Amino acid sequence: MVTGRSEETSGRIRLGMVGGGNDAFIGGVHRIAARLDDKFELVAGALSSTPEKSRESGAVLGLDRVYDDFKQMAIREARLKSGIEAVSIVTPNHVHYAAAREFLKRGIHVICDKPLTSTLVDAKKLVKAAESSCALFILTHNYTGYPMVRQAREMVANGEIGKIRVVQVEYPQDWLTEQQDFKQAEWRTDPERSGTGGATGDIGTHAFNIACFVTGLKPESLAADLQAFVPGRRVDDNAHVLLRFEGGARGMLWSSQVAPGNENALRLRVYGEKGGLEWAQEDPNYLWFTPYGEPKRLITRNGAGAGDAANRLSRVPPGHPEGYLEGFANIYSEAADAIIAFRSGNSPDPSVIYPTVQDGLNGVRFVAACVQSSARNAAWVKLE
Amino acid sequence: MVTGRSEETSGRIRLGMVGGGNDAFIGGVHRIAARLDDKFELVAGALSSTPEKSRESGAVLGLDRVYDDFKQMAIREARLKSGIEAVSIVTPNHVHYAAAREFLKRGIHVICDKPLTSTLVDAKKLVKAAESSCALFILTHNYTGYPMVRQAREMVANGEIGKIRVVQVEYPQDWLTEQQDFKQAEWRTDPERSGTGGATGDIGTHAFNIACFVTGLKPESLAADLQAFVPGRRVDDNAHVLLRFEGGARGMLWSSQVAPGNENALRLRVYGEKGGLEWAQEDPNYLWFTPYGEPKRLITRNGAGAGDAANRLSRVPPGHPEGYLEGFANIYSEAADAIIAFRSGNSPDPSVIYPTVQDGLNGVRFVAACVQSSARNAAWVKLE
Amino acid sequence: MVTGRSEETSGRIRLGMVGGGNDAFIGGVHRIAARLDDKFELVAGALSSTPEKSRESGAVLGLDRVYDDFKQMAIREARLKSGIEAVSIVTPNHVHYAAAREFLKRGIHVICDKPLTSTLVDAKKLVKAAESSCALFILTHNYTGYPMVRQAREMVANGEIGKIRVVQVEYPQDWLTEQQDFKQAEWRTDPERSGTGGATGDIGTHAFNIACFVTGLKPESLAADLQAFVPGRRVDDNAHVLLRFEGGARGMLWSSQVAPGNENALRLRVYGEKGGLEWAQEDPNYLWFTPYGEPKRLITRNGAGAGDAANRLSRVPPGHPEGYLEGFANIYSEAADAIIAFRSGNSPDPSVIYPTVQDGLNGVRFVAACVQSSARNAAWVKLE
Amino acid sequence: MVTGRSEETSGRIRLGMVGGGNDAFIGGVHRIAARLDDKFELVAGALSSTPEKSRESGAVLGLDRVYDDFKQMAIREARLKSGIEAVSIVTPNHVHYAAAREFLKRGIHVICDKPLTSTLVDAKKLVKAAESSCALFILTHNYTGYPMVRQAREMVANGEIGKIRVVQVEYPQDWLTEQQDFKQAEWRTDPERSGTGGATGDIGTHAFNIACFVTGLKPESLAADLQAFVPGRRVDDNAHVLLRFEGGARGMLWSSQVAPGNENALRLRVYGEKGGLEWAQEDPNYLWFTPYGEPKRLITRNGAGAGDAANRLSRVPPGHPEGYLEGFANIYSEAADAIIAFRSGNSPDPSVIYPTVQDGLNGVRFVAACVQSSARNAAWVKLE
Repeated sequence: MVTGRSEETSGRIRLGMVGGGNDAFIGGVHRIAARLDDKFELVAGALSSTPEKSRESGAVLGLDRVYDDFKQMAIREARLKSGIEAVSIVTPNHVHYAAAREFLKRGIHVICDKPLTSTLVDAKKLVKAAESSCALFILTHNYTGYPMVRQAREMVANGEIGKIRVVQVEYPQDWLTEQQDFKQAEWRTDPERSGTGGATGDIGTHAFNIACFVTGLKPESLAADLQAFVPGRRVDDNAHVLLRFEGGARGMLWSSQVAPGNENALRLRVYGEKGGLEWAQEDPNYLWFTPYGEPKRLITRNGAGAGDAANRLSRVPPGHPEGYLEGFANIYSEAADAIIAFRSGNSPDPSVIYPTVQDGLNGVRFVAACVQSSARNAAWVKLE
Repeated sequence: MVTGRSEETSGRIRLGMVGGGNDAFIGGVHRIAARLDDKFELVAGALSSTPEKSRESGAVLGLDRVYDDFKQMAIREARLKSGIEAVSIVTPNHVHYAAAREFLKRGIHVICDKPLTSTLVDAKKLVKAAESSCALFILTHNYTGYPMVRQAREMVANGEIGKIRVVQVEYPQDWLTEQQDFKQAEWRTDPERSGTGGATGDIGTHAFNIACFVTGLKPESLAADLQAFVPGRRVDDNAHVLLRFEGGARGMLWSSQVAPGNENALRLRVYGEKGGLEWAQEDPNYLWFTPYGEPKRLITRNGAGAGDAANRLSRVPPGHPEGYLEGFANIYSEAADAIIAFRSGNSPDPSVIYPTVQDGLNGVRFVAACVQSSARNAAWVKLE
Repeated sequence: MVTGRSEETSGRIRLGMVGGGNDAFIGGVHRIAARLDDKFELVAGALSSTPEKSRESGAVLGLDRVYDDFKQMAIREARLKSGIEAVSIVTPNHVHYAAAREFLKRGIHVICDKPLTSTLVDAKKLVKAAESSCALFILTHNYTGYPMVRQAREMVANGEIGKIRVVQVEYPQDWLTEQQDFKQAEWRTDPERSGTGGATGDIGTHAFNIACFVTGLKPESLAADLQAFVPGRRVDDNAHVLLRFEGGARGMLWSSQVAPGNENALRLRVYGEKGGLEWAQEDPNYLWFTPYGEPKRLITRNGAGAGDAANRLSRVPPGHPEGYLEGFANIYSEAADAIIAFRSGNSPDPSVIYPTVQDGLNGVRFVAACVQSSARNAAWVKLE
Repeated sequence: MVTGRSEETSGRIRLGMVGGGNDAFIGGVHRIAARLDDKFELVAGALSSTPEKSRESGAVLGLDRVYDDFKQMAIREARLKSGIEAVSIVTPNHVHYAAAREFLKRGIHVICDKPLTSTLVDAKKLVKAAESSCALFILTHNYTGYPMVRQAREMVANGEIGKIRVVQVEYPQDWLTEQQDFKQAEWRTDPERSGTGGATGDIGTHAFNIACFVTGLKPESLAADLQAFVPGRRVDDNAHVLLRFEGGARGMLWSSQVAPGNENALRLRVYGEKGGLEWAQEDPNYLWFTPYGEPKRLITRNGAGAGDAANRLSRVPPGHPEGYLEGFANIYSEAADAIIAFRSGNSPDPSVIYPTVQDGLNGVRFVAACVQSSARNAAWVKLE
């Protein structure tokens, strides 16, 4: 009855972390995700840009080795016999490139939070750094780790909805409806640290990424109308985007942080010549599938109608919901499988999939194109 | 417990119909809508452009007087002592103007299906004809007759969601996913009869109308990317539209006839500085209301939380669903109330609301602007 | 695209009404239901037990003939050349028998609200009266008029879920959570007028009826635990019932008027050896069907997957909701079809189905058995 | 924005496991649950009743110490300086008592899967064993770990729905609709290993437990109609139960393993004099709350309207779903908090709650009473 991801515990991967100190949100999520399937062991960290905070946080987490900064950490860990094999980078966006570079050039695998960087220049440099490194680079576009997102991707690839015509993707939130001063809000609305995109960078990139991931379509150009509704806000908090894909498919993308009643309402709908697929992050264990002219079908995670791509990432029976942390953990598990294969000089099994540095570059390009298009009154901008 | 619309049967309004013969769809809907609250009596018709069909259909319906064409009908009914007081025009779009004109100029009230006309030129002429007539003109943008749409409008007007920032409206269908040859599909995809807009005209106008009706916002300009996905189709079957409103609100509008799994999935979401509202035509008895920072609330038709604007259009207790025909009948009932007031030289009660010829012109302008914008690669086009 | 019920207007059936004066609820529903498909014309009434009220209400409705009491009406109408062919009885329950008898014995068809009567003695007498009359007797268990209830019944009959094992049916409301003094509440909680069952009679009978209608199972016995939670209430306001059917199927039935958050939440779930069906009155255009081991399917009224039994009772395309009034009107339309066949001495088409006097007796027996079982501490009571 | 459970990693609790070898389902769930919040470290195990399997499984899991049987494990671990502090017992039901006893009498805390035991005799002995031990006993009625179940409990305790009248609880599944031969199905349908209850014991106990947990009501008696629908099945696969609680509240409980279309559809609805609450395990991040006479409100985990009892068990922001594993982990986290307090001789904070051995006894009594009542034709049986 229960299929899917098994526990493998021998030889946990030694993991470090950059960022993710006491008052950070996403660092804790990465730690749970790394721990869930027991494939990683967190042993070292440079958990804050303030050395004292780093030490305090390291003590709370019981880390073996705590560093004052990421460069020091990269240098020393690379020399240790049992130094870290991989590092999670969970800092604000503008630090991603500098931190990742230090580890990549020393052959330490990087698991990096999204968006890839705060600037397009940095993103391109990071792609080069990753390409010239033997180490792996994994970007945590975590929503691609949801089993039913994999299911949707597999069904599209299998031709079950035919040639795609229309892509509707949206990610509305409401937490920035009013001016907020707490830490999470503060750096995310500061263009120096977050990048020129606000909602666009923080959540629009997720929407863009998942749309491309599921459809397999190559985006060609976009037209964007960005707004900063909250007085004084320096980055967009609402974005309306038209998309054109190679081959003629068209899309709409909406990301917002000012839509009261929406928590994390990422939703993807894809329509092809033969059928439609609909998925929502807030109800992630279900995928609606309509073969044109037939009744809608509700495919459930690990249940009837679910295929290999979804089942290999499931842990518990259908009807027992898995959620955000499990989806995030699936990215870590994929990373672990790739690293374990890497250890022995092999490529991972082809079923192992994770977002790459190229996906990250695409995301930063998306943000840059949105900003550029909006500045030109929503003119079409090519996505290279 | 039961509030709302009461039956008033004395002095039913004598009604005629143009179009709506045997094999038409919307004619039957108009007849049920006119009958539901017992305020109209259908007595005459020119039910088809083919005289034989008109006579056949008239016999089936048991009409008192059947005419070969609408002009003849207008002339003769205007002369009868107990001739029709109002006429429903339910022909294909390109006939609306010519038919309506004949009745308006003879002082017979017109209840006309949407979109107003198939061309902008006709629409402007029809506005003039209506303005120079003493008779009333009612456009059946029927979705504005749903009680919870009225509820949403009332709440916006009362400031319950604050100044509006974002409007998301969509109307996807799937019935034209493949080439169709039956009558309903045939004239709707013929630009000569339907107008230059396909999905845009047939359902996009509904979406546009309901967004304006609920928000009270004045649309300023739009940018549209229209597609005709089905090979050989001469009008759009999918439209992606960006909207800008006076005062700074922004919107997205999607209408599609090629989205498998969508039947008549008109949905409106409006977000303001203080809260959000969400309504879906396929589940019309409910309105989601989120005051920012509080739990979502489900307001039900005729139930707790529903106000006067909704309750006066309700017939049965909450939990007993009312649907499409009841919403359509509400437009007829509003029309009847206005006509009854007109009989005695009065204005109707201010709570009586129905879509006007000006709303119709706005809809045709919307279609024209979409087509124009799309032809210019989604450049912004003003909505006058 | 649009299938289903067509309008037939020639020779409307002349209808009378007993009860249903100004301040009644269900009378208005019956009138709309009778009018919707244009098969009846209301021409006479004895609308209240108070002659003045009857006359007032008759004037408001514009009736041709208004009577002071139902007996007078039955006698005179039977003598008229164009007297009523059918009568709707919409009084409180305790009047049903006496009124129905007068019309039945004069050959006037009776359309009677449920439950059949307030006592088992009356119910049995009414069965006799109906059986010895040439006239038809139709009971408005209106929920059996919903197209998707017909769909469920057809699927069960076709063996699509196999031999039935479990039936779960419930009808919770909340409107009697506190003591209420208005008219609807008042007679419904008076055992003299409502019968010995409260919630059991008013809504439990609907739940019981729909379960039997859809499954085709014959109930064998029940065990009931009834409560009157609101202080001073003289009839049950909450009922928990275990059911046993011939052939071994088992069921649970819950009816309540004290369940806050429930409006008219009638819901039926049926499980067999091969699959399951689920339907809810508040979302009536959909039927969930799960063939065991396959994904759930959502069958929509008039849409893909819907069969003849549902489609012949549909008026508008899928995605345009039909509701309570349309379901109620379907019972009237079935009655009309039967009466029209009767006029010419024929049996109606076998697809014409309506609840009969025998169904009514079964409902009253159900109430009596619930009361008896509860008085015996939920001992099993046979349903004859 | 993010509140709730923080990570505490210093001094992980040393944990052993009895059962949970390679091909078991629930063992893996317990291990993830123990690991999620990083408060336990699994170091020892007797993972199977077959020594070879135990050793194999231990090797896969990388355990420090693997034993051939639980008694040997209890004896040796108790003597080790750094032996286990707690043990998870995840064997089939009939082994629970014998295993738990060995650890309890040596002062090792026991975390035991439900139902408590396979017989009432064993259950009573286990209560004694727990009461006479200084060690803690935690029963994994995991659904009580869902934050919104805690929310519901808190709201009931705060009087937000008033005095409770009606409890509706159900747990339908469909996986035993047909005869199944795999391991999970096999022991669960064997009365020697599972106990005399089938669905009643496996899932009915969960439904019963959660109803009591949320309402705080004391069940007084029940009447049960059990069925074994699948030919040859030796325990019930469907149970219909009426409940009476002290103080006059009444309930219905349905548990089934033969209801196609239901995966793990545990659902609880509670209605009081002032309002209603509704929660569903398959959509666990939401709680519906209806204050009588007001619109329904949707309270979301960690979102607006959620209180301390729920928020302290939440990890991620609202709209990012937590699921079954997180709820299960909450029980482990509560256990950890209690064990950590125990280490220093303290009682845990009063907000720490977990199911106890007494809850376990109540569950076994529930099963025994169901079986007894059903054997007596659904006569009422007292729950002591």
